Amino acid sequence: MTAEIIRQRTRHLRHRLEEHHLDGLILTKPVEVTYVTAFAGHDSWALVTKRSVYLLTDSRYTEQAEKECVQTTIVVRQGAMPEAAGKLVRRLKSLRKIAIDASVSVAAFEALKKHIDGSLKTADGLLETARSVKDPDETAAIKTAIAVASKALEAVKPSFQPGITEIELAGTLDLEIRRLGSQNSFETIVAFGANASRPHHQPGQRKLRKTDTILIDFGAKYEGYCSDITRCFVVGKPTAAYRRAYEVVRQAQAAAIETARAGVELAEVDAAARTVIRASGLPVYGHGTGHGIGLEIHENPFLKEDAQGTLQAGQILTIEPGIYLPGKLGIRAEDDILITQEGCQILTEKCPHDPLPA
Amino acid sequence: MTAEIIRQRTRHLRHRLEEHHLDGLILTKPVEVTYVTAFAGHDSWALVTKRSVYLLTDSRYTEQAEKECVQTTIVVRQGAMPEAAGKLVRRLKSLRKIAIDASVSVAAFEALKKHIDGSLKTADGLLETARSVKDPDETAAIKTAIAVASKALEAVKPSFQPGITEIELAGTLDLEIRRLGSQNSFETIVAFGANASRPHHQPGQRKLRKTDTILIDFGAKYEGYCSDITRCFVVGKPTAAYRRAYEVVRQAQAAAIETARAGVELAEVDAAARTVIRASGLPVYGHGTGHGIGLEIHENPFLKEDAQGTLQAGQILTIEPGIYLPGKLGIRAEDDILITQEGCQILTEKCPHDPLPA
Repeated sequence: MTAEIIRQRTRHLRHRLEEHHLDGLILTKPVEVTYVTAFAGHDSWALVTKRSVYLLTDSRYTEQAEKECVQTTIVVRQGAMPEAAGKLVRRLKSLRKIAIDASVSVAAFEALKKHIDGSLKTADGLLETARSVKDPDETAAIKTAIAVASKALEAVKPSFQPGITEIELAGTLDLEIRRLGSQNSFETIVAFGANASRPHHQPGQRKLRKTDTILIDFGAKYEGYCSDITRCFVVGKPTAAYRRAYEVVRQAQAAAIETARAGVELAEVDAAARTVIRASGLPVYGHGTGHGIGLEIHENPFLKEDAQGTLQAGQILTIEPGIYLPGKLGIRAEDDILITQEGCQILTEKCPHDPLPA
Repeated sequence: MTAEIIRQRTRHLRHRLEEHHLDGLILTKPVEVTYVTAFAGHDSWALVTKRSVYLLTDSRYTEQAEKECVQTTIVVRQGAMPEAAGKLVRRLKSLRKIAIDASVSVAAFEALKKHIDGSLKTADGLLETARSVKDPDETAAIKTAIAVASKALEAVKPSFQPGITEIELAGTLDLEIRRLGSQNSFETIVAFGANASRPHHQPGQRKLRKTDTILIDFGAKYEGYCSDITRCFVVGKPTAAYRRAYEVVRQAQAAAIETARAGVELAEVDAAARTVIRASGLPVYGHGTGHGIGLEIHENPFLKEDAQGTLQAGQILTIEPGIYLPGKLGIRAEDDILITQEGCQILTEKCPHDPLPA
């Protein structure tokens, strides 16, 4: 991240502090610490004040922090994090009204409270909206993460051979992602046959058969930014039931993508996909239709039936309806899209959906 | 997990509820949900009352929960988790005094509070002591996790060839772990040369040289249980500085292992290792000397300078002192030990430390 982007982000956050009459905000989520400091390690908190940004870390990360941090004062803590944060706040004196993000644990919140004199409250999602709209560097990073994932998937297709286990196929894909200098954005899901009816199936020892189906849900990370893709493949000839469900899923996905553009209600995009599946008579999936991706694999906005709010230009999110018939089949089609004023751009186009064998 | 073990665990937890005058406890940490229900999925909470255990999950996990759960009532939630938990508590009526583990976020805690009529407080570590002492099944699972890790490491040793990158070596090791039907217990650290001076180095594109050093910190998971091992290797001839530091680390480790047995203060074991390093004049590591392993890769007990409490028979933990010289070298030796009345048993003996080349 360039210094200019970090400056923009802290400037934005300081506006939010002013709006909320706060002297400082403590960030505890690793991705938000990264967002404002560029530090990519763990177990660290950030404190943003009107003047400065502090990174509270420990000796394991000192070297990394010095390398990565942009415009950040590094504070190496000795004791527990809440105590160290309290000490820092007290040392800075002028901080009377402090907030900490609401994802902090009750245990840490209570411990911190004991160590500061001023008022402490929680702040919910001060960065969430800003984070959901990607700047050009972030969009470029996600595009690279998509390109890596697509390339890795292409490289493992020759391994779709009868006898390979789910776990070995997942491992082979993960190794390809690493060979490309990247990491997984989450634990790869490989599900053969009816195993795919569990949307979060953990790859196991199930072997690929001569006539079978494969669902792969995976992603790569580039400079901290995630891609998230699901593709389904058929080995041999698909059943009529599979063929029909596959087509319905793809239609549902197309309907949601068709609907997505800046200003549209999140719930409307969600409904677009569900309506197609409902109309088919097949069961409607229990998960969301999609979610934002960025430094987190799941972040704002979330496309759900009861979602509030609208899409904004610059957001990048997944569109991933599915059909799950326990004991029979599981199908999900997941692409990553960039929201624009006019509609959206499919970023995963170079990762083709396999046409079903005739 | 057998039904009997789950029964023992819930029985134990109910005693703790009585001691704390609680009608019910909500568990939110995935590993603790697993501990009392045998469910291995995510995004789920458990509620333990005097009579029953409930798993609050969503439709993605219904099938898995029905397969895995032991003596658990599965409740499929629709809305947000705190709301669903509140509804369940209200529906059960007789629950007036409820606690939730203190690792819950402030946001979730506040949301839950709104949805229940009775009193809600946090409870800290009601399961931590029980979880730290492993029953025979858990010990067997950790031993298998260690055996898998050792076998995987052995299998990748032929890959210690000049030119391989850290990231590719890490990926190769991870693939071996998967081939053995297992998963990583955490993200594998592979650090060449001076990169190892960062204890949590992220593998990168650095290539192995003809004369070089390798640090690998990794582990496998078996039935949810983790192993955690660090081994250092030398390619070519080590420098005198490396040789000396390596020997000091191994002596420090031996001193801690020598000290470890049931009843000994945690801080004493920690001090045993640090004293050796301090006496050598080399810098003393900033991290702990070791930590418990189990369903979590880091769990009680923690061997730190300011640790309170004593070791108990049946605990399994790492012993992992290190020496870090930024820009020069990093060495860590990490074994997993089982605490007994008489001393301890090294569980990682079949994963040999490489003797330094002459």
